[in-house]
Amino acid sequence: MGKVFAEISMSLDGFVAGPNPTLENPLGEGGERLHEWVIRLKSFRDAHGLSGGEAGPDDELVDEAVRATGAVVMGRRMFSGGEGPWENDPKADGWWGDEPPFHKPVFVLTHHSREPLVMEGGTTFIFVTEGLERAIVDARAAAGDKDVLVAGGASAIDQAISAGLVDELQLHLAPVLLRGGVRLFDDVGPEPPRFELTKVIASPLVTHVRYRVID
Amino acid sequence: MGKVFAEISMSLDGFVAGPNPTLENPLGEGGERLHEWVIRLKSFRDAHGLSGGEAGPDDELVDEAVRATGAVVMGRRMFSGGEGPWENDPKADGWWGDEPPFHKPVFVLTHHSREPLVMEGGTTFIFVTEGLERAIVDARAAAGDKDVLVAGGASAIDQAISAGLVDELQLHLAPVLLRGGVRLFDDVGPEPPRFELTKVIASPLVTHVRYRVID
Repeated sequence: MGKVFAEISMSLDGFVAGPNPTLENPLGEGGERLHEWVIRLKSFRDAHGLSGGEAGPDDELVDEAVRATGAVVMGRRMFSGGEGPWENDPKADGWWGDEPPFHKPVFVLTHHSREPLVMEGGTTFIFVTEGLERAIVDARAAAGDKDVLVAGGASAIDQAISAGLVDELQLHLAPVLLRGGVRLFDDVGPEPPRFELTKVIASPLVTHVRYRVID
Repeated sequence: MGKVFAEISMSLDGFVAGPNPTLENPLGEGGERLHEWVIRLKSFRDAHGLSGGEAGPDDELVDEAVRATGAVVMGRRMFSGGEGPWENDPKADGWWGDEPPFHKPVFVLTHHSREPLVMEGGTTFIFVTEGLERAIVDARAAAGDKDVLVAGGASAIDQAISAGLVDELQLHLAPVLLRGGVRLFDDVGPEPPRFELTKVIASPLVTHVRYRVID
C-alpha cells in the first residue's frame, strides 16, 4: 500500500493562498507568486497538455510525485475554485476545465451528494459526503499500490494532519511574503503531530522540505 | 564593511516565540522547542561558558556567524526578557546574566536613555533611543569590517527588513508547530522586499534557509 502525502506551496510568512480570492483568481492576490516555480516545469506543462518546459531538480521532484500518485483528495473549495459564493453551488463543475491536470480519480470533500464527473484525460471527480477519513479510505482503494495525495486546500490538509491520516508532508517554500490570505496549520487542532525532516531540495525559486508526520 | 544580517529560529507555522511569555520563560509556551537544535551545539555552549557540545554542520554554521559578527542590534524586549510589564523598566539589567553570550557590543533599541552597561566577558549593552536606523549605523561603526547581526525580536527584524537595512536573512526552520505566539513578518509593512535564496543547509532538527534581501 502506498502512503498518504500532502504537499502545498507556502510563502515565507506561512500563506498558501493570497487574500481576496475570486473565481477568476482563486489563488488570491499575489497567490500566483507561490506557484511561479512549478508552472515553468516540463512535468507541470505535460499534465496540463502543454509542450516544453524546464527540466532539473524541481521537475524531477514533481514528476516523481505525479508518477507515484494513484488518487487525489481535495476540499470542495479547491474543486470549485477558491472561497466564495460559488463554492456551495452543488451543480458547479469546478474550474479545472474539460481536461483537468490530474489524470486520475479525484475525491472531492463536499456536503452535496452527486454523481461522479468523468472528465477528459482520465480525471474523474468523485464526491464524498461522509468526511475526510472516508475520502482517504476510498482514495487508497482507488490508488492501489500507489500514493494518495491530499492536494489542498489548507483546511483539508490541516484536517488530514490533525486526524493522523498524513504520512508525509512536503512544503514548497517560496521566497515571497504575501502578508495575508489563507494560512496552513490554522486548523491542525490543539495537539498537532510531530514532524521529522526527511529531505530538503533547494533551487533558486523554491525550497522543498519534506517531513514524516509522527502521531 | 561587513553586511547586516538577521537570523531567527521559526516554527513551521511561522512563530518565533510561543504564546504567553513570562520573565521565567521569555520564549513563551513551547518556544524552547525552536531552539533545541542550537542549545546542544559546541559553539552555543562555548558562547555561554559551557564545555562540550556537538560538532557538525549546524555547529559550523553557528560558529561561522559568531566569528563574522562584530556587533549586535536587539529590541528592548529581547534585552529585558520578552514581552511583559517589566519590559519598560528603565533600570532593568536584562535577563542575560552577568556574562551574556554575545562577547561584543550589543545595541539595544529603547525609549529610555541610559549609560552603557559593561558586562563580564566582553558584552557591552549600549542603549539607543534614536531608532533602529541609528542603532544599525552605530553597530556598523562598532563592527568595523565585521557583520552586524539583528538578533531579534520579530519586531526589530521586521522593522529592519522593512527599512531596507538588512542584507541577508537566515531562518532556522524548526519542524514544530507552536500554534500561537509571536510571528515573524507581521510588521514588514505594505511593500516588503523580495528575497533571493542563497543557501540551504539541512540537518535533522532544523533547516537553515538563507536569503539575500533585495530592495
